[in-house]
Parts: sequence; C-alpha cells; structure tokens
Amino acid sequence: MDRITIFAPATVANVSCAFDVLGFPLEETGDRMNFVKTNQKGIQIKMLGNSNLPTEPEKNVAGVVALAMLEQTKVDFGVEIEIDKRIKPGSGIGSSAASAAGAAFGMNLLLENRFNTTELIKFAMLGEKLASGTAHADNVAPAITGGFALVRSYEPLDVVKINVPNELYVTILHPQIEVKTSDSRKILKKDLELKTAIKQWGNIAGLISALHTSDYELLSRSLEDVIIEPIRSVFIPLFYEVKKALAEAGTLGSGISGSGPSIFALSKGKETAEKAAKAMQMVYSQTQIDFDIHISKVASQGCRIIRNNNE
Amino acid sequence: MDRITIFAPATVANVSCAFDVLGFPLEETGDRMNFVKTNQKGIQIKMLGNSNLPTEPEKNVAGVVALAMLEQTKVDFGVEIEIDKRIKPGSGIGSSAASAAGAAFGMNLLLENRFNTTELIKFAMLGEKLASGTAHADNVAPAITGGFALVRSYEPLDVVKINVPNELYVTILHPQIEVKTSDSRKILKKDLELKTAIKQWGNIAGLISALHTSDYELLSRSLEDVIIEPIRSVFIPLFYEVKKALAEAGTLGSGISGSGPSIFALSKGKETAEKAAKAMQMVYSQTQIDFDIHISKVASQGCRIIRNNNE
Repeated sequence: MDRITIFAPATVANVSCAFDVLGFPLEETGDRMNFVKTNQKGIQIKMLGNSNLPTEPEKNVAGVVALAMLEQTKVDFGVEIEIDKRIKPGSGIGSSAASAAGAAFGMNLLLENRFNTTELIKFAMLGEKLASGTAHADNVAPAITGGFALVRSYEPLDVVKINVPNELYVTILHPQIEVKTSDSRKILKKDLELKTAIKQWGNIAGLISALHTSDYELLSRSLEDVIIEPIRSVFIPLFYEVKKALAEAGTLGSGISGSGPSIFALSKGKETAEKAAKAMQMVYSQTQIDFDIHISKVASQGCRIIRNNNE
Repeated sequence: MDRITIFAPATVANVSCAFDVLGFPLEETGDRMNFVKTNQKGIQIKMLGNSNLPTEPEKNVAGVVALAMLEQTKVDFGVEIEIDKRIKPGSGIGSSAASAAGAAFGMNLLLENRFNTTELIKFAMLGEKLASGTAHADNVAPAITGGFALVRSYEPLDVVKINVPNELYVTILHPQIEVKTSDSRKILKKDLELKTAIKQWGNIAGLISALHTSDYELLSRSLEDVIIEPIRSVFIPLFYEVKKALAEAGTLGSGISGSGPSIFALSKGKETAEKAAKAMQMVYSQTQIDFDIHISKVASQGCRIIRNNNE
C-alpha cells in the first residue's frame, strides 16, 4: 500500500459524569488525510485550505506522530501527509486528536499494520502532548478504537472499547469563542467531597451499564455531572439555556464536550438529534456569537479508510 | 399462600472500587426464614438457635420491615416470622440486610406480590436504618434483585441489576473481631483529590464493563480501591498478607466486604475459589483470631423461595 486516504473523526471526551475517562467518535464529522509513500525519507506535511497550523513536521500534531513511527520502524521510505482539516482547532471536539489519531492510523497502514491498537493510541498521545502539553488519551483513544472508549488507566495504558447503542446520535453546538484547555484545567478544584465523588461514580457505573444494555432511559438518568460542569460552564455563554432547550427537545442529556466550548447532546434517533440542533440554533441565534452545529451518529468505528490506491 | 420458607442471602457491598454503590449476593451463604399467616394481627418474631437479637418487632430488623408493610396494606391478618440466622451479626457480609431483605421478600409473597422491587428495597432499607442508623441500600438491594446491584442514586432510589459472569465465585474470610460500622465510617476522610477520584471511577467503569462482557481479565485489573481500602484495612489484622496470598492463589482480586472485618476475593471458577480459601486459612492460622470461611457462587438471584406450603 503506497497511497491511502482516511477519515479521522471528531470526538467528544469527558462524557458528562465520565470526566477524563470516556470519549466517543462522530460518524460524519472529521478530517480527511492522504498518506503517500515518498522516496525522500522523513515526513512532509501539507495543509489543504486556509489553515494556520504549522507544517514543519516537528511542530505539527500529525507530524510528530508520524516521525515517531518512522523512527521506530527504520523503513527506507518517507511519507507525505496531506491534511484536509475540517474540525476547527479549539472547538473542544478533538481537532488535534483527529490529526494525531489519523496520523497513527494512516501511517500504520503504510507500515503494514505492524502496531496494535494500544501502540497506536500511545503514538497518537504524542500529538496531544504537542498540542496541549498533556499526553491525554480521552480523544485519541475513541478516534482509534471507535465506540465509547474507556481509558481505565494510564500506567499501564488500558483502553476498553464499549458498545454503542444502535440509535445513538450526537448533536454538537460549537460556539466560536476561544476557551483555552489550560484555563479550563486551572479553574477546576483539586479536591472534592467523598460524597460528591460517590454520586459521580454511581452515574458513571449507570452510564457504562446503559451503553452495554442499550438502556436509553438509564443512559439519560446517568448523564449528570455534579463535579466539572458546574465549574466549567461559566466559560460557555448561555450554557444552561441551551441545556434546558435540549431537555425540552427530548434529548437524553447534554454536557460540555471536552474542555469546551462545544456543547454536546445525546439523542435516541436522528429525529431527536435534529430537534436538538434546532433548539441549539434558537438559543444561539439570540447571541452575536458565530456557531457551527454538527449532527452525527455516534460511530462504532474510529479512523477509517476512504480510498486506497495501490500503485 | 399462608406459609412459606425463604433463603435470604449474605451480600458483599463496596466491591473494591465501587464504594457505596455496588453489591452482590452469595448463592450458598444466608439465612432461612419462615413466614406464617396468623389470625392474630401484627408481627411476631421467633429467633431459632442461640441468638441475642431482640424479638420485639419494633426492635428487630425483620420486624420493623414487616410492620411497615402490614401498616401500608391494612390486611386482616398477622404474620409470624421465624428466623434461622446463619450469618453472624457484625461480619460485614450483610447480616442485618439479609433479615431486612428477607422480611420484605417473604412478606410480599404473603401480600400477593403487591410491591415492586424498588418498593421492597425501600422497605428493607428501614431495617438497615434500625441496624446501623443509616438507610443504606448497598446490601439490601443485591439481596433482593440478585446479581450485581448498582445503587445509582438515592433520590430518587435507582437500582440497576447488572449481569453476573457465569463462573464467578467469591471466597470470604470472616475474622471474628468486632469492627463497628460507625467507627469504620468515622475513619474515612471527607475529601479526596480529584485525580484520585478519577482513578477510582476509571476502575468502576472498567468493573461494570467487565461484568457485562464477562471479561475476567478486565474485572481483575479493575478491582482496585485507591480510596477506602488503604484507610479501613488498618482495622483488619494481616489484611495485606491475606491479599498477597489471595493474589498468589490466582484470584481476580480481593477487598474489604462492606465495612469489614470480612475480606472477600473474587475468582473465576470454583477451583480457584477453593485455593483462595486455603490461602486465607494459611494466613489466619498464624493468628489467635477465630475465623469462618465461606465459598459461594456469586448469585444471579437474591432472596428465593425454599418451601411453599399452602394450607
């Protein structure tokens, strides 16, 4: 395989109660990336469209991942990576993770699948480290495994793929304001009450159980974050107005995607997901803030091949 | 139905990482209770064998549950409850919960099943409140539902029954020392670090997922309590020696049952569960402490009918 085009999905991490341990990919929202073997060794990055992202491989999220993989494999070729970035950086739906996971996935195909899933996640985490300073896995893991990805532990890295109920859709509102991940980390309290933690882990246990049994009602009851959301929501204009409108639209629940500013809502069925989009639009039309809305099935698959041209 | 004999199981609550939210019943260890309709109204309690437990219904765990159910139903008969208490009080394997859950279950049969599962758990919680001052559900819920019972929330009460992997066995060491629930509550810290809580809820999510998929390896990796066990284990002599011996015996994991002093170990298959029993015995034979050991399948069913004599 000498040339390949892949889809690298947007992802939602910190699924309400499951802060720092759970994420899932979108089926229709994501980047496209071309990988072409070159005689010239090393990595070349090309960004399509008008992107401000750096193209020096050492400074590019996909670049650092690809360089690390080349270095470990010592092959006699190089790779040109062309990135059609459709997920806006800073959106909170895993823009850097898509590039990082996509790079790991695409490079692995050119390298004859020599790395397993856990290794790919570890490579992709290098991209996250470049992007945010922290090698977190809660976006890159689902972008690679597909489904709900549980990052149970980091040392050692232990990622568990969890079932996606068949009719589960996500609607995302991306208000085009900047929330720095570092700021939204800083604002969190370092300590919490044991009884609050117990409430949260009851909900997490409910959420995981609901995913396995496709119990939408339990899923809905469990989508409650008593720790992070009350703090981080201050960064997102009209957060609770949106949440209220989403509940009225019949969604299962909603929350902050990643560290924001995007808001996600989960729904049973596409029809409700579309109602959620209208509800988001109604509330945000009242503001001067530009926004995007995405509707997608929650994807059972992560990065995937779109086109595969062997030369 | 005028006369019935039931089995009320012992239960393990606080399953390692799942403090205060999860419990499961034993298949072979538990109390027997007879319920007989009487013309005399009210509740009469008889304790079999040599028990120090009070027999005034208002002061007896089964009694308060049964009284509450009679009061709500206003039937024209009374019930005599004969309790063959085989679970030692203070063992940490749900002695009071067995009486409370058994009373709710048995009375409901005489009352033509007019109460649903959630209502039965609420009645049984009255017994727990009498026994310990707190109307907790993490023993009575599994004793009634069977399987792993997740107490997701108390307000409103939301209990979710979770699958039991087929070959899952539990071995329990009950050192005959007294650990008061109130003391073992007092010793806990009220606050904890967010990063510690995240580690714990990663494990809980892993544990719930493992139960649903019968993934014994994940179950084993997830059976880790970084919050409660390090504190409460001080009350249990040779706790870490037992834990080490259990790991060497090939168990999936071990921890404190309820608030102790019992130690439970989960195993895949009866053979390993028996090895666990030997390991416990080896360590505790070195002490002057009397102890019991129980081996049982983890039960998919909670309270059950043993004999049913209609007159």
